[in-house]
Amino acid sequence: MRIKLTVEYFGGAFCGWQRQENGISVQQVMEEAVEKLSGERVHIEGSGRTDAGVHAKGQTAHFDTHSKIPPQKWAAALNAVLPQTVKVLRSQKVDESFHARFDAKRKSYVYRIYAAPVASPLRSAYFYHEPRKLDFEKMKQQAAVLLGTHDFKAFMASGSPVKSTVRTIENIVLRKKGGEIEIEITGNGFLYNMVRIIAGSLVYVGLGKIEDLRQVLNSKDRVMAGITLPPHGLCLKKVEY
Amino acid sequence: MRIKLTVEYFGGAFCGWQRQENGISVQQVMEEAVEKLSGERVHIEGSGRTDAGVHAKGQTAHFDTHSKIPPQKWAAALNAVLPQTVKVLRSQKVDESFHARFDAKRKSYVYRIYAAPVASPLRSAYFYHEPRKLDFEKMKQQAAVLLGTHDFKAFMASGSPVKSTVRTIENIVLRKKGGEIEIEITGNGFLYNMVRIIAGSLVYVGLGKIEDLRQVLNSKDRVMAGITLPPHGLCLKKVEY
Repeated sequence: MRIKLTVEYFGGAFCGWQRQENGISVQQVMEEAVEKLSGERVHIEGSGRTDAGVHAKGQTAHFDTHSKIPPQKWAAALNAVLPQTVKVLRSQKVDESFHARFDAKRKSYVYRIYAAPVASPLRSAYFYHEPRKLDFEKMKQQAAVLLGTHDFKAFMASGSPVKSTVRTIENIVLRKKGGEIEIEITGNGFLYNMVRIIAGSLVYVGLGKIEDLRQVLNSKDRVMAGITLPPHGLCLKKVEY
Repeated sequence: MRIKLTVEYFGGAFCGWQRQENGISVQQVMEEAVEKLSGERVHIEGSGRTDAGVHAKGQTAHFDTHSKIPPQKWAAALNAVLPQTVKVLRSQKVDESFHARFDAKRKSYVYRIYAAPVASPLRSAYFYHEPRKLDFEKMKQQAAVLLGTHDFKAFMASGSPVKSTVRTIENIVLRKKGGEIEIEITGNGFLYNMVRIIAGSLVYVGLGKIEDLRQVLNSKDRVMAGITLPPHGLCLKKVEY
């Protein structure tokens, strides 16, 4: 039976989603939790990797089991053995043909920035701190330039091995509340580091270091975009099928 | 010259505000930061102690210095040597007669509860998790009982050495947004563990384990109140003078 999981985790506790030699990954911790419960050594396939430090509110994954644990009960069963840093929000039976990665239609990420002169200890695990003044209206205006289907080569970590660098951003929303800025981006797929580079480029727009993101897009040159912001500001919010 | 500081810190990193033999306190870290800057071994007096694990968004403190660092510049100077877990939001010159503890007129604390079947890894550093269903309207109703001047003996850690257990709660506000519940309490002073016991008692009200907080007040018996909720849900929001 194939089970789909929706998972929340605190990125700071992990070397990322995917198993690695050095460091504890979310995948490893979850696969070990399944083994503790059913004795099965399963492979849990995520909707995609998240890097070390990146949080998830709604990562999705699937695995196959012969256990008699009812599908909806897997969440509570896993949570009983999982650490506080990762919890399963939902478990459900899916068709054997369901694939967490290949069937994902849409993903939403949120990047959080705290724009204030003094860094905030209570926000430091979830926000990138920007002490300089940001022009939020300009950031909002320029974010709209990225909407739609474009070649996002300039917004990809250089040297990433992909066939096509064309992606579609279906929605990009910027919110501001006091010093807290949220950039929420929804798309059909993302290049390596794309959201963190877009967030860094929007910060550059806010600082007046970049005037026109259309020029950055057209350049297809990573050097023209802003810096890659750190992972702790990023959260995988939702994966839709 | 006397300097007043407004300080934010992540409670999980400290054994509390006050210096202790075992563990790193906020006070120690801040006094060492002053010494690094001016060479002075100062005593930094806080508005009050916060326990190990309790956060602060607006703790206040004062110290005396002969340094030539201008009063307003102390914040940035201290922040340059302080760790990410504690930052000074503001520094200002105050009268030599100002005392961070004795002159405090009013303090506001917030206790955060996450009421949902599954614990949330992304909230676990700031919220107490309550998996059982809470009757929020009842909690709001009963919170109002605590408003005003009462003998709060039932809401004090037993055995605390104080002259009077009479305190005044000037305001108590409960907010709910999804599973997140905030209890904000403002008063002229608080007994030991009082806010955490009030929060625990309101959870008991929400669970139907306590019907009437007036009876708890009148009993003056710690056993009649709810449990002391853990420190990580508590945050010292503001100290007024």
